Amino acid sequence: MDDERFLREAIRLAESAVARGNQPFGAVLVRDGEIVLRAENTTHTEHDFTGHAELNLARQAAQQFDAAFLSQCTIYASTEPCAMCAGAIYWSGIGRVVYDCSARRLYEIAGPGLDTPCQDILSRGVRPVEVIGPLLEDEAIQIHHCYWHISEE
Amino acid sequence: MDDERFLREAIRLAESAVARGNQPFGAVLVRDGEIVLRAENTTHTEHDFTGHAELNLARQAAQQFDAAFLSQCTIYASTEPCAMCAGAIYWSGIGRVVYDCSARRLYEIAGPGLDTPCQDILSRGVRPVEVIGPLLEDEAIQIHHCYWHISEE
Repeated sequence: MDDERFLREAIRLAESAVARGNQPFGAVLVRDGEIVLRAENTTHTEHDFTGHAELNLARQAAQQFDAAFLSQCTIYASTEPCAMCAGAIYWSGIGRVVYDCSARRLYEIAGPGLDTPCQDILSRGVRPVEVIGPLLEDEAIQIHHCYWHISEE
Repeated sequence: MDDERFLREAIRLAESAVARGNQPFGAVLVRDGEIVLRAENTTHTEHDFTGHAELNLARQAAQQFDAAFLSQCTIYASTEPCAMCAGAIYWSGIGRVVYDCSARRLYEIAGPGLDTPCQDILSRGVRPVEVIGPLLEDEAIQIHHCYWHISEE
């Protein structure tokens, strides 16, 4: 139940990102049932194609919290983290990843990108990071249908 | 010859990073034989374990230059880019990666990390990115021998 609440908040942040002129991706960081950070995609407003929601969140998390705290946190992402974001999650120390929509579903709509499943990346580390998803995929995919068919890239 | 000059500049930046209190990694971005950006690791001074030299460089590059310009650029990294940095290089649009020291040599000294060869990550994209390395590995490994045996993690 809590997972669903946070997964929907990530989707809401993806919608907020689009409203600000960015790409449809959002993420939240949760510890003990409380949201401690929120992040959105910032690729257009910051003119930086590395401005993914999960990287933005992992950077803030690493700056604000220590590794012991972050190991007990979950990042909820509206779409499966790419290799860059999975790496950032690993180095930041976040302990668990839950995502709505798979990257492969995204790429069917938006066109192909980096075909590197999050689980594959994180399983290559020595620090265990639990990865769960896709969940609520049909709900999360809606914004991609709207966005990528209308706007860009 | 030019490759060696830029690879040595990346090593010099890794040394500079240590002098500033950070981890031993550096990177330069080159276009038409000229260095257009330099970056160092900033993990300690910015309290952010995602502050890798190549991510710092890719973010600056994406903010300052367009994809057509970056496709003609090479990033020279003092050590093989991790999954996070390879992803950032991919999304930024940089066309070519050359590195000094392999991640596996680093991990033999520093302890294991994310075992995701840069070439493996970048071969999963649709945009071709040339990857060359290791080169000058015995030269580049020296700073890792000094740093990781003395200081930390």
